[in-house]
Amino acid sequence: MLQPGQTIGILGGGQLARMLAMAAAPYGLHCHIFAPRGDNPAFEVAQAHTEAAYDDFDALARFAAAVDVITYEFENVPAATAAFLQARKPVRPGPKALAVTQDRLSEKEFLQAAGLPLAGFAAIDSLSDLKAALARLGLPAVLKTRRMGYDGKGQAIIRSMDEAEAALAGLGGGDCVLEAFVPFGREVSVIAARGLDGQVRAFDVCENQHRHHILSKTLLPATLGTTASGLALDYAARIGQNLDYVGVFTVEYFVVGTGADEHVLVNEIAPRVHNSGHWTIEGAQTSQFAQHIRAIAGWPLGSTTRLGRVEMDNLVGDEAAAWRDIIGQDGAHLHLYGKAEIRNGRKMGHVTRIFPEKTA
Amino acid sequence: MLQPGQTIGILGGGQLARMLAMAAAPYGLHCHIFAPRGDNPAFEVAQAHTEAAYDDFDALARFAAAVDVITYEFENVPAATAAFLQARKPVRPGPKALAVTQDRLSEKEFLQAAGLPLAGFAAIDSLSDLKAALARLGLPAVLKTRRMGYDGKGQAIIRSMDEAEAALAGLGGGDCVLEAFVPFGREVSVIAARGLDGQVRAFDVCENQHRHHILSKTLLPATLGTTASGLALDYAARIGQNLDYVGVFTVEYFVVGTGADEHVLVNEIAPRVHNSGHWTIEGAQTSQFAQHIRAIAGWPLGSTTRLGRVEMDNLVGDEAAAWRDIIGQDGAHLHLYGKAEIRNGRKMGHVTRIFPEKTA
Repeated sequence: MLQPGQTIGILGGGQLARMLAMAAAPYGLHCHIFAPRGDNPAFEVAQAHTEAAYDDFDALARFAAAVDVITYEFENVPAATAAFLQARKPVRPGPKALAVTQDRLSEKEFLQAAGLPLAGFAAIDSLSDLKAALARLGLPAVLKTRRMGYDGKGQAIIRSMDEAEAALAGLGGGDCVLEAFVPFGREVSVIAARGLDGQVRAFDVCENQHRHHILSKTLLPATLGTTASGLALDYAARIGQNLDYVGVFTVEYFVVGTGADEHVLVNEIAPRVHNSGHWTIEGAQTSQFAQHIRAIAGWPLGSTTRLGRVEMDNLVGDEAAAWRDIIGQDGAHLHLYGKAEIRNGRKMGHVTRIFPEKTA
Repeated sequence: MLQPGQTIGILGGGQLARMLAMAAAPYGLHCHIFAPRGDNPAFEVAQAHTEAAYDDFDALARFAAAVDVITYEFENVPAATAAFLQARKPVRPGPKALAVTQDRLSEKEFLQAAGLPLAGFAAIDSLSDLKAALARLGLPAVLKTRRMGYDGKGQAIIRSMDEAEAALAGLGGGDCVLEAFVPFGREVSVIAARGLDGQVRAFDVCENQHRHHILSKTLLPATLGTTASGLALDYAARIGQNLDYVGVFTVEYFVVGTGADEHVLVNEIAPRVHNSGHWTIEGAQTSQFAQHIRAIAGWPLGSTTRLGRVEMDNLVGDEAAAWRDIIGQDGAHLHLYGKAEIRNGRKMGHVTRIFPEKTA
């Protein structure tokens, strides 16, 4: 159990690390950020930082020596880096979470083994694999690289057999996974935490809207029946258990069917705090960031009670210019990430609004 | 009007500066803390810091050059320091607020000139002043140094004429003010902000309980009739106007009388965010820290709507050990200030609990 005055090491220097560091400070815990050279807005709110590459093992050794527990803001921590750090200090969440979620194929196999519902999929290492899989799963289908994809990067939709060859070539010719296209009605996510003692606490189901494959808006309560909602929460808890997870994680779902047929399919797992959980800063009794800090510190998890109806809007690229209007709106909570440069498609900030819950 | 990406300079490196820096970050504003060598828990959550004495004018010049606006966490900024900085960058709140509030006598004269109710007082520069004032104001009475008193330091209660000489000698023999003793029923405070455009917004009246002259507990709503409550808010607005104030300030009151006779006397003004406003972090739509940042940035003030019934408990000295219990209590918001050493009487942190408001 971490004591106030001890130090959390965080791999990654972006907005998630920044908000983690800001959540650790009120607990009297210090943060040390490790990130490669670049725009690292987390540095300014942490006691210490190391600017070095993830394969700079001298720097990693000094970092590990300076901290008491290590976590990360992104799932693509190189395996060698994780192994090196694990030999020195507790890394939370642990190696299984990274191994499973870094590779879309491993992730799907893990979900399948856990008995959770997900879209049909197939490993693709050649054009013949792809053609056979398309024949089995049907068209359209989505081809994705097994590793390093996010926000729509590393994927291609295939609408006809003719597009198969070019799609595969465009993604490197192999090491891919094909997913059956899901004609989903909505996308929802569950942000949950699992403590060092195995306790799981989840926030309410979030409804998410994307634009150009980037999260645009999160709404709560989600438009989702109680059965499907209960399943989404139950699946998340099962994922946490099966990964022997410590910390906050996110499960994204497709909602399919309506009425009595409504159900959810697991889309993907993120072994970290998540954009669709930013609303918890003002909208829940404990933020997802504070919850992650509690979990990796070995502390009891906090209350996930929601404080009202929620609207969270991302500020992507030029949308950050809206800050001038937002600061004039009562009850609009502005969050800018302190990034030096506005770029197209770059997450610059978000704004959260909490309203009294409608009572029936 | 400050833009995201610009920098706020803060004089003082304690918990108030720390919470100000943590409130500036979500607005995309950077902070640079200036404080003398010591335990400065604000440093770790700010982009930059300068560790130097307040009379190190070379360091002050570099600090002023590096920031866009300057504020402070304590009222005892030396006049020469303030003047030096004002010549280089906007200092908010401005010189009048410092001049008036640094000196108990000036403050009382300011309040009297503004027509606000306060306890009887007299300037004391000699034993004969003191004896005459005791005869006029009655016994008991409280003798205080004009400058540098806080948390009960620099004051003595005089219960009989015999104690007068020793009390005055103990406080340096002069430069004091005598205050009539107020047999108050309760202490309350108002945290208010005034924007660069002159707009004033106040948080609800806070009820405060002290122990050994240190704030122990803040409760909202205060046990106070609507008339007295309205007066307390009105007086605060008048103080803000008359000081041509920019930023958050605090007015502490004594509540005297009951029923139709209930009224408030101004006790003192703090030209800064205040311990009795820490509840606003979770208990109001805008925290006092975010509000101060908005005001000094020239931004519109945020909503001061209270979100429930509030209990804020300070963690003073050894009470900080309660963190272990507090983290296990749902809905208890722990704030530790990251101070290196627990000392008797030292404010180590606080805990805030928000409950649904009782409806009549």
